[in-house]
Formats: sequence, structure tokens, C-alpha cells
Amino acid sequence: MASTHLLSAFDEELQYLMRRISEMGGMAEQMVADSVKALVNTDAALAQKVISDDVVMDAAELDIGEKAVIVIARRQPVAADLREIIGALRIASDLERVGDMGKNNAKRVMAVQGTGVPRKLARGLEHLSELALLQLKEVLDVYSTRSAEKAKSIRDRDEEIDAMYTSLFRELLTYMMEDPRNITTCTHLLFCAKNIERVGDHATNIAETIYYMTTGAPPEGERPKEDLTSSFGAEE
Amino acid sequence: MASTHLLSAFDEELQYLMRRISEMGGMAEQMVADSVKALVNTDAALAQKVISDDVVMDAAELDIGEKAVIVIARRQPVAADLREIIGALRIASDLERVGDMGKNNAKRVMAVQGTGVPRKLARGLEHLSELALLQLKEVLDVYSTRSAEKAKSIRDRDEEIDAMYTSLFRELLTYMMEDPRNITTCTHLLFCAKNIERVGDHATNIAETIYYMTTGAPPEGERPKEDLTSSFGAEE
Repeated sequence: MASTHLLSAFDEELQYLMRRISEMGGMAEQMVADSVKALVNTDAALAQKVISDDVVMDAAELDIGEKAVIVIARRQPVAADLREIIGALRIASDLERVGDMGKNNAKRVMAVQGTGVPRKLARGLEHLSELALLQLKEVLDVYSTRSAEKAKSIRDRDEEIDAMYTSLFRELLTYMMEDPRNITTCTHLLFCAKNIERVGDHATNIAETIYYMTTGAPPEGERPKEDLTSSFGAEE
Repeated sequence: MASTHLLSAFDEELQYLMRRISEMGGMAEQMVADSVKALVNTDAALAQKVISDDVVMDAAELDIGEKAVIVIARRQPVAADLREIIGALRIASDLERVGDMGKNNAKRVMAVQGTGVPRKLARGLEHLSELALLQLKEVLDVYSTRSAEKAKSIRDRDEEIDAMYTSLFRELLTYMMEDPRNITTCTHLLFCAKNIERVGDHATNIAETIYYMTTGAPPEGERPKEDLTSSFGAEE
């Protein structure tokens, strides 16, 4: 484990990677939460902030990648120490993509500005993002504690988010069918809902990476399904 | 460069990673092409094949990840050799996600079965996927030749795909507005179009990774925009 060796410079380098990842995690959460707030309130200024934050996230991922390569080259770590660094690279990539989901939502704020977001759909989006962000928050906590068991249990319970996404997807289709004037806005909200659902997928990826970092193996068993809506409408 | 050192066992290990990535690349292309064929012809058997292929892709990515960690631990490479392996990890991850895009399209075949895909939209999807797959094919060729300049030029010309995606997006909205009975099918086709557009994004990611592997630096200059439709409807 990282804590048992005496190379303190190496420890400091690992600590640096962990700190950068925590920062990225906090920012990713904030971006997704802000993007939903911006959508629901059609707040263009907040949307613009989220879009700017994405530049910081991209730079952070690049920095973690560069530092990781330098640490591997300098310290030539093996086993758990090496997995620690490879894991940091993977987690940084997932967090960068969570930020992208926030940015993509934020870019759709302008598109829904004209009609606004119907209250019921807004509540659905908020609830979906609360669930996805809770999962992300928990997985980032597990990153600090490195509990393989906890990582596995998070990975195994993406279902609630999927069920909520499916119900929101259905509701959006209904709105579109009721009035063609809702179609443009609802199409953008469909993509927003999908983006939020993917935040949950990235949290699951991170849980799998933590499991691998801790145990050296991928988690066993089939991963739960990501998207139940893909066959929705099949019976119609 | 990988070719200048004498450690032939290491060379063989690098060759193994490159071969595995080429295989993943070929399979990813096939999956996306087949998924579009399955959609256009509502061919459930072909869709099922694509969905099964995804298991092979997941296993290939895991294998590359495991082998990469073993090679780093055993050979403790630095500089270009280390970037070669870190790059292989990143490319495998992008190719795995290209496969996911194919799988996601394939899963929507059932959903559009009832109505089928209108001929004009089918042509649009086919054309979009031809462009995206051409870009992926070219980037995989660049992976063999390692031309940093060529990698940069691929990265800089995602615009054609984006323009075509935007026009298809617009057409799908029109279909939905014309007749609410088109909404369910067109919603799934919207996600399919987005999946195909993202194949182009992954090709761009791979081009950036090759540039980094070859030069040790990320490409300079702003990356072209990925999705022009996010503000579509803003003026309505």
C-alpha cells in the first residue's frame, strides 16, 4: 500500500495526484449542479460560468496526466503504487467527462430560453441530478477511504438513477406528443437528462477503478445496465 | 523511439499492445457500421451481433490495461516508451467507447422496428457514419505511421461531421413536428446520430493521443467545437 513505503518524496507526489483529483471531483459536482440550476432558471450567466469552468477541468486532467508520467518515469513504482497512478489517470478522465456533461447542459440553456422549462420537467431534472451527484459524491468519498467493498456496492446500485431517467424520458416524449411546440425544448432536455444519467455511469466507472486500485482486479459480475430507454417504444 | 533500443522482449510487448489496439480499432469500426445497417434495415439479428461484440471489446480493453501495467512494472520505461504505453491505454479506452456507441445504436433497433426508418433519414445516418468511420479509419492508419503532423490535421477537421450532424438533427426535429407519431422513432434516431457524431470525437481524442505519444506534448490551439446543435432553437 502507498502508506507502507518510506520514499517520502513519492508519497508527496501521490498526495499531489490525490489532491488534484479531489479538486476535480468537487468542481465536476459543482458544474453539474450549476448546469441544472441554470437550465431550470434559464440563467445564462451561470451557464457561462459552467462553460468557463470546463477549461479549468481540461487543464487539470492534462496536469494529472503529465505528473503521472513523470512520477512513473522517476520512481518506477510497481504493484499497488503503480495501480494508484494508473487509477488516478482513469479517474481524472472520468471526472473531466463529468465536467463535459455539465458544460453540455449549460450550452443548452440558450436553446430552452424561449419556452423555459415546464415546472414538472424541471423537478424531474433536479431530482435526477441530485441522485447522480449523490452517487458521485459517495464514490469520491470512497476514493479517500479506499474501501473495495464500498466501491463494489456503489457500482451495483445504479438502478435508481436509471429508473428515474426512464420515467423522465417517457414524460418528455409525452410533452412532445401533446404539443409540437414543445419539441425543440424537450429534445434539448432529453439530451440533458441523458447527460445527467451518464454522470451516474462515470461514478460507476470510478467505483470500478477504485476497486481495481485496491485489489488489483476488475470487479466480478455483470455490470448493471446503463440505459433502459434504448428499447423504449419497442412495443408501440 | 521504440525502434532504437535493443530490448527485444520489450519491443515484442509493445508490438502486442499495438496489435491488440489495431484489432479493437477494426472491431469498433465494424460495430458502428453494422449498427447503422441494422437500424436502416431494422435487422434485429445484426443488432444482436453488435451487442455481443461489445463483450469482446470490453475484454480487450481490460487485457490491454493489464498488460500495460505489467510492462511498465517489468520494464520501467521512460520518455517515448512510457508515452507509448500510456497512449495505448488511452486509445483502448476511446475505442471501447466507440464500440459502446455501436452497441447503443444496436439497442435502439427494436425501438424503431414498429415504424422503420424513413428513407431520407436513413441516408442521413448512413452518410454521417461514413464520414465518422472514415475519420476513425484514418486516425488508426496514423497510429501505425505515427505522423504527428497528420494527427494534428485530423484533429483540426471535425467540422464536416459536425455540419452534417447539425443538418440531420434539424431534419429529425422537422419530422417530429410534422407528425407526433414520428416522435418516438425520431427521438431514438436523434440519440443514434449523436452517438455517431461522438465516434468522430473519439477519433479526435485518438489523434490527440498520437500527437502526444509522438511529441510528448498536447496539440496546441483550441480544439474545434464538438456539437453545434446545443444552441439550436435558441432564436426561436
